[in-house]
Parts: sequence; C-alpha cells; structure tokens
Amino acid sequence: MKSRAAVAFGPGKPLEIVEIDVEPPRKGEVLVKITHTGVCHTDAFTLSGDDPEGLFPVVLGHEGAGIVVEVGEGVTSVKPGDHVIPLYTAECGECLFCKSGKTNLCVSVRATQGKGLMPDGTTRFSYNGQPLFHYMGCSTFSEYTVVAEVSLAKINPDANPEHVCLLGCGVTTGIGAVHNTAKVQPGDSVAVFGLGGIGLAAIQGARQAKAGRIIAIDTNPAKFELARSFGATECINPKDHAKPIHEVLIEMTGWGVDHTFECIGNVNVMRSALEAAHRGWGQSIVIGVAGAGKEISTRPFQLVTGRTWKGSAFGGVKGRTQLPGMVEDAMKGEIDLAPFVTHTMGLDEINEAFDLMHEGKSIRTVIHY
Amino acid sequence: MKSRAAVAFGPGKPLEIVEIDVEPPRKGEVLVKITHTGVCHTDAFTLSGDDPEGLFPVVLGHEGAGIVVEVGEGVTSVKPGDHVIPLYTAECGECLFCKSGKTNLCVSVRATQGKGLMPDGTTRFSYNGQPLFHYMGCSTFSEYTVVAEVSLAKINPDANPEHVCLLGCGVTTGIGAVHNTAKVQPGDSVAVFGLGGIGLAAIQGARQAKAGRIIAIDTNPAKFELARSFGATECINPKDHAKPIHEVLIEMTGWGVDHTFECIGNVNVMRSALEAAHRGWGQSIVIGVAGAGKEISTRPFQLVTGRTWKGSAFGGVKGRTQLPGMVEDAMKGEIDLAPFVTHTMGLDEINEAFDLMHEGKSIRTVIHY
Repeated sequence: MKSRAAVAFGPGKPLEIVEIDVEPPRKGEVLVKITHTGVCHTDAFTLSGDDPEGLFPVVLGHEGAGIVVEVGEGVTSVKPGDHVIPLYTAECGECLFCKSGKTNLCVSVRATQGKGLMPDGTTRFSYNGQPLFHYMGCSTFSEYTVVAEVSLAKINPDANPEHVCLLGCGVTTGIGAVHNTAKVQPGDSVAVFGLGGIGLAAIQGARQAKAGRIIAIDTNPAKFELARSFGATECINPKDHAKPIHEVLIEMTGWGVDHTFECIGNVNVMRSALEAAHRGWGQSIVIGVAGAGKEISTRPFQLVTGRTWKGSAFGGVKGRTQLPGMVEDAMKGEIDLAPFVTHTMGLDEINEAFDLMHEGKSIRTVIHY
Repeated sequence: MKSRAAVAFGPGKPLEIVEIDVEPPRKGEVLVKITHTGVCHTDAFTLSGDDPEGLFPVVLGHEGAGIVVEVGEGVTSVKPGDHVIPLYTAECGECLFCKSGKTNLCVSVRATQGKGLMPDGTTRFSYNGQPLFHYMGCSTFSEYTVVAEVSLAKINPDANPEHVCLLGCGVTTGIGAVHNTAKVQPGDSVAVFGLGGIGLAAIQGARQAKAGRIIAIDTNPAKFELARSFGATECINPKDHAKPIHEVLIEMTGWGVDHTFECIGNVNVMRSALEAAHRGWGQSIVIGVAGAGKEISTRPFQLVTGRTWKGSAFGGVKGRTQLPGMVEDAMKGEIDLAPFVTHTMGLDEINEAFDLMHEGKSIRTVIHY
C-alpha cells in the first residue's frame, strides 16, 4: 500500500515528504496506522549522521501512537482497531532477559532492529523500488508502518493519542528511571541534569515518588518555570556559579544528592552527576544518549566511597506489561503529559519540528497525520 | 612508654626498627598491645611515596590484632585484657553515615585520620622527640599503639590472632564486598580479577554465597591452585588469550558475568571487569585501590544497557557490629584464614615481608611481636 512518510534519504539532509510503498505485515508482524508521533532528539541524532549505527535511506520516528490495521500470521495479542504504542524496546516474554525479572532489555528482535530490518531480515518499506530501512523497530514518521507484534503495547483506546504518544520514548524514559532504575524512596533527594523532555519527566517521576528535595539543573533558565510546575523544589543554572556544579550540589546538600539523573547525553555532565551523588550510598543514573565514541570517566575513589553508577534504556519499563498502566496513569492525571506538547503540526512541517528542537524552543512537537 | 616499632622515615626507604615513645591514651582512646600484624599492599603503596596523601615519618600498619592495655577517659566499650582488631573504618554509631543503615563509611574520625592524627588533632607517637604520624587510625607496626575507641572491634579472645588479624583488612574487604556490596545470590556467576589476598577472599565469599560459576582471573597461574581450593570453578590467565579478557568472559558466559570484582587496583582491569558484567543486570565492584590520579573510563552505553559500576571499602563491613561475627565464622571454619598466611616472621624482618609481597611470593606475611 501507499503511505505518506517523511524519509531521511541521507545524513544531514532535511526529511523529504514522499509517498512510499509499505508491504503487508508478515508472520508475527502488525500494520499500524500512526495517528501521532513525537519528534525526539534521538531522531535528530541519527539524522545528523553522528550516529555511527545510523543507516540511510530510512524512515525515522520512534515515539508514536496509532491503530492496528492488519495483523500478520500468528499474531494474537492485538487485532485491527486496537490502539497501540510502538516500542523500540520489545518485550517477547520468552527470552533470557524478559524471563529474568531484572531488566527490560529484551533481545528477541534486537539483532535485526539494529540493522534497520524486520525480524526476518527484510524491510517492508520502499520508495520508487528502492528499499528503505526501518528505525528502532518503529518508523513512526510513516502514516502506515509495520512493527513486530512483540514491539507493540496495546493501550486504552480512550487515551488521548496526542499525549500518550510521548510515552513511547522520552516521558517513559524519565519517569521509569526514577521508579525502576533508581527506585527513589519518599524523602530522598534528587538532582536532574537537563530539562528537556526526559529531565522534566524525571522530575514528575521524583514527585510521584515523594522525593524530598528535587533539584533541577539547566543552563537555560527559561525552563525553570515548567520544572517547578512539575515538582522541582530548586532550580540551578551552572552558569550562575564559579565552581563546578557537583561542588555546588555537595555544598547545598552536605554530602551530595541521593539520586542524580543525567538527561542530556553529555559525558562531562555524567561525571558531574556521579560526583554530586551522596558519599556512602548516592547513585547516578545515566539516561541521556552520548555521542559516538564518547567515554565517561571518574576516579575509582568515587565508587569505593560508596557511589553507584548505572543507567537504563526506556526507563527500565517493560513495554507490553507496564506501558498500558502508565497510559492509565496519564488518563487519571497522575502523569501530566499536556505540558510536554509545546507544538503540534502536520507531517509536511516536520523539518520545522527539528528546527524548533535544535533551537531549544520546543519540549516536544507532536506531528498529526 | 617505650615501644618497638617499624618506622617509615621517608618515602621509598626501608622501614627502620627503632624504639619509639608512645603517650598514654587520652579521652576516647585506647592503648593496645599489638600481637600480630599483616603486611598489606596499602602499606607498601604509602611507603613507596606514590600515595599523594602519604605522610612521613609515620608508623604504618593497619591489619592487626591485639589486646587492650589501658583505656582513656570515657571509654566504655573495651577494657584492659579485651582482644581487639583495630579498624581503619571506624564505627561510631552516631554519625549520619552510621545511622543511615546504608554504608559503613563512618565519618567520626575521618578528617583527623586522613591527616595521620588522633581525633584531637595530635599524635601519640614520637622518636627522639620528633613526632611520628599515625596511619589509617591503626599503626599496627608498633608493638604498642593508640587507637580511638570507635576504631576497635572487640573479638572472641579464643580466636587465633595470627589468623584473625587478617580480618582487619584484606580478607574482610573481599568477603564483605561479595555479601554487602554485590549481594551475590545462590547460583549467580562471579568473576574475580586478581588473586591476591582480597581476590582470594572474594572467592571464599562467593562460595559462602553459593555462587554458581566462580571464575578466577590472574596473569600468574601459580595462584590458581589456591583459588580452586577456595572455591574457584574456573581459572583464566589473560595471557593465554589473544582477545581482551572481557570478551573471553562474555564468550564463556553468553552475555557476561552477574558480578565481577576488581581486586587489583588497575584502572584498565576495572574497565574490563565492568564490560565483562552481564548485559541487563551485571554489576562490577571496584575493591582494589588505584594509583594517585588514575581514572576509570568506559562508554556510557555499558551503563545504559544495564551494567552497574560500584565499589566499597572494607567490604562494606561495619567493624564493631559485624567484625566480631566474622571472627566467629573464622573460628567455626566458615572463613578459612590459614591458607592466607604464607609467611610469618618477627618485626625485625618486616622489610623482607615487603620484598616477598613485591615479588608476588606471599599472600600475607604475618608479623609476630
């Protein structure tokens, strides 16, 4: 079938809005009509060409919401008409990782997903006969996309798709890291480095977890008002201080912060976040995605004196098991998604969404098909 | 009073066996007659001059056992005749850290201990009128030493001091890290990098914890027999493999090892140990003490895909609360200390103990006074 899509034909080039061909779903696959998609920094990172694993030409997009149109052979967990969120972190329920009860990092479709292909090693997308790669198992920048059954969370059809599409990536990443990775307890202190979508979501998560102090850190003070509305108790601009930010935080707290979250992808900030963690038991969670080849460093003394360095992807959330409940939380207002959506537009304007993001003017732009 | 002691008068010089003056214990302090002391790599590190916090002239030694001779004002937890192990990690029971229930890193005497002084900011040691620094709050290379009350674990007087002195540092560091820091569970896989005293103790801890595979790693295969006797199920010499050791371990295990322990103090090995940890949930524990200014590095991707990097000092063991029980475990044979004591000698021969250690010929030399 034909589908309108924003295709990345090469690194660093604007997306082109074209009509592509989408093949029917094969065994274990599902055809989804995407109704809404967010535009995320990870899409921009791959589009820029800086992602060493980036493949072109490709249909980007991984933060979407949609409706099942057709299911392939053997698909039982969804049927046409079901409302779904595509998952870049699949959940098969069968692999070593899914069965461990310790991680959300399912490996069922990992190898082919990393190659921009469906689990059988082929693509469902083409343009003028030229194959197009899939992206993160989702490719939500096409009105019709094909996704593995294990990569779909079935959600309440009454949820607002313009909002809950954001649970497909950034918001879940931030909130989930607070609950699943850090396991923040009531009264704990929290510091969030970077007030983009993920950082603001981490602040919401910290408030849900009844954290005590919630310290928001960004070099752009324009973001502080929203951070406060989400629950930040203090906002700090590192530019306002002569000394390094981790020293500022240690002074503010005595011995450091119980839980710190790096929500930017900057390896220098990751070090600051670790070193701002509380002596004896503080932990720092890496959520941001760093550039290719970048490395984090610290003195091992930081670990020997009781700090823990860890990270998670998609907030440690198991998509098919846990995401439907987060959608319910959003419907009840326990997760507040509306303020994340600073802009909405049609697919034709998608390059403008990237510009807004690069200029720091948007939290999320949601594309309506 | 006069006391025979091995004094380090300057970096890189052999210790000199001399008669020093020891002042009586002041408020909150205890005079201890040391009967046995181990010689540990940390003593050698400070003696070498590579330790940027090393102070001279100093009475080194921090892995001892002894008997209380006299107590200062206000001391209630020990009395003359009690058998004790000096603690370089104090436990006051009152500070933020002791009360947290999350760490053994008591701060009650931390500031002065780091300066080579007693808690009141002075020293009890002198030689020909020249003050000598204390070391790690213990200074077990003097037959008589003065220690803060909070830095003494009272132990069963029937314990063999030649053995249980080793619980003052290395053995506790290794065993404790397995139980307190990593919390190894039955059936888990474990890899131990470096088969010195700490590494061999970690292997014992892993066997106590009923770990499944216990993989011992060292470039000196002469250590493998003892590692096996302590519970190692496999021994690997990285020199036998063309590929990096973390890749060897990942191949052996499929996705990496549940818990890895760095027991050397080499920052490159620390990276290997982290990267050998299991995708999704593996953790790597830094126990070894790295050289001054050395830093650990890795790609943050290692953390985002579920590995945790942590560390501990003194195995996370609270000395006054937990060490007496470990002494009981040693008396029951649940901790096997005898094989660690490869050499014994008198204080006059202590420089030979350092030579044996540097040449890799000893696990522990225990000095008898």
